[in-house]
Amino acid sequence: MPKFSLSQNNGSIVSINKTEISQWFKSLQSDICQALEKADGKGKFMMDAWERAGGGGGLTRAFGNGRIIEKGGVNFSAVFGKTPENILRALQLPESDFYATGVSIVLHPFNPMVPIIHMNVRYFEMSNGTWWLGGGIDLTPHYVVEEDARYFHKVLKDVCDRHHPDYYPEFKKWADDYFYLKHRQETRGVGGIFFDRLAGDPPFDKSQRFNFVKDIGEAFVPIYTRFMQANHHLSYGERELEWQRLRRGRYVEFNLVWDKGTKFGLDTDGRTESILMSLPPQANWVYNYQPQNGTREAETLARLKKGINWIGTL
Amino acid sequence: MPKFSLSQNNGSIVSINKTEISQWFKSLQSDICQALEKADGKGKFMMDAWERAGGGGGLTRAFGNGRIIEKGGVNFSAVFGKTPENILRALQLPESDFYATGVSIVLHPFNPMVPIIHMNVRYFEMSNGTWWLGGGIDLTPHYVVEEDARYFHKVLKDVCDRHHPDYYPEFKKWADDYFYLKHRQETRGVGGIFFDRLAGDPPFDKSQRFNFVKDIGEAFVPIYTRFMQANHHLSYGERELEWQRLRRGRYVEFNLVWDKGTKFGLDTDGRTESILMSLPPQANWVYNYQPQNGTREAETLARLKKGINWIGTL
Repeated sequence: MPKFSLSQNNGSIVSINKTEISQWFKSLQSDICQALEKADGKGKFMMDAWERAGGGGGLTRAFGNGRIIEKGGVNFSAVFGKTPENILRALQLPESDFYATGVSIVLHPFNPMVPIIHMNVRYFEMSNGTWWLGGGIDLTPHYVVEEDARYFHKVLKDVCDRHHPDYYPEFKKWADDYFYLKHRQETRGVGGIFFDRLAGDPPFDKSQRFNFVKDIGEAFVPIYTRFMQANHHLSYGERELEWQRLRRGRYVEFNLVWDKGTKFGLDTDGRTESILMSLPPQANWVYNYQPQNGTREAETLARLKKGINWIGTL
Repeated sequence: MPKFSLSQNNGSIVSINKTEISQWFKSLQSDICQALEKADGKGKFMMDAWERAGGGGGLTRAFGNGRIIEKGGVNFSAVFGKTPENILRALQLPESDFYATGVSIVLHPFNPMVPIIHMNVRYFEMSNGTWWLGGGIDLTPHYVVEEDARYFHKVLKDVCDRHHPDYYPEFKKWADDYFYLKHRQETRGVGGIFFDRLAGDPPFDKSQRFNFVKDIGEAFVPIYTRFMQANHHLSYGERELEWQRLRRGRYVEFNLVWDKGTKFGLDTDGRTESILMSLPPQANWVYNYQPQNGTREAETLARLKKGINWIGTL
């Protein structure tokens, strides 16, 4: 889908450099924004270009005035400079320079029957030659619908399986563990996949890893526009909106308490408005709220658990 | 005000033990709840007693169905057991037992002209004899009103000055630094006082430190009921409510990203509903919201800075 594609030569590219990766990410951002505007039919992504004091910058695209999507954004950034202290410490490395680039998306729909979605793809390298790719995509339905979760996981499994049979089971488990509100003993939603520090260790090389990340990036539009189109006509009332606002509160809790990207960004003086674009338009908290047994809200809570095999025997 | 008071013998008490401190805190909780119910005139504090797996427990009192206060609570807890790893590491101490007790309050009013308030008083000791008192009280007006801020700081200064001339300037600065959203370069509100690890180092002894903490605890009701009574009749409309929800969003950001007590509680499997009772009923986020120059919202933002001498030459 992106106009600028490195895989056009069928994997014959020998070395992919940071600039090419970054350009591909930027092109992905543009394509995703265009496709989401088309699917929404009304809203537009505005553009905010920003620069980072230490080097590099980004293009933040925040969505507004939508018909299906209420709030959200698609962020691109490519930043560089001195490697942050905590990364050096974690990797036990001496001072070096880093380069980090990626695309990050969160979308909050109006209709509680349309799930919240998140995707992130990223590349990191240091001047000592270390590099890795990372990313993830996870779905947060306000009401868990088994067949929606099954469809989502099936698409992800198909993409993963094209690259390595271990990818889906491994990255699905990683998502269960990562998108987890420890203080609630709840998963954020029905999970998806999460992966980090994918490097060139045999049998993988950089092209293979990057091709996987590209496939994930390109899976975003068909996945989410399907949910937008199929679910935004479903009816709902005040009860569903109330529940949506409570679930959005959980989304806030995850992003501000547990999400490593958010924490890293806020700790290292990232651009606050771009980092917190992931927050919902509105969130509510009610002390010790417990849905009544047998309701769809209680059923949803019961499905926000790690280790569910959504695909089943498919 | 508390029915059980250790200072009734004019400071002649030689040693105050953890049980007495804890009982005083529990009595403070009860008195504050009673006074707030009276000032609100409609809402009630419900009671949730809870036990901690590792030892101890608490009494959570969440406010509901109010006229002036929309959401909030007054928490008491007294917990004990093995000292958490991170505290031992920070203090470079071997394994030991701890005892921690305190009262913690956050109140979110309906009317945006009534400020949000927070207070916490706490006592911590370890089996090796180490002990300290801590606490703080800070005011978060949705709209900063100079004379309200001045009154608030004047009351706190008077309480501090009765105990030591350094207390107010030192603890006021500590509050400015603590109640600070680094990622926004904004203070949470107009500050107040914050203090931690007040131990028995000369010229202070435990009674003196505890008497100070008690005075702070007893200052809460007169301070906040004044704001409830004086401000809840002030008129407001949709514009002020929208701003309130954005400011409540900032409150959420502070509590979930920066507040050490919240973080410690969630990290150490504290009772989530008690810890997150501090969150507002509703919070909103708007991408890159900037109030127009010259508005009261812009004026408020301009006053959310460290180092403001609210009392002036009074």
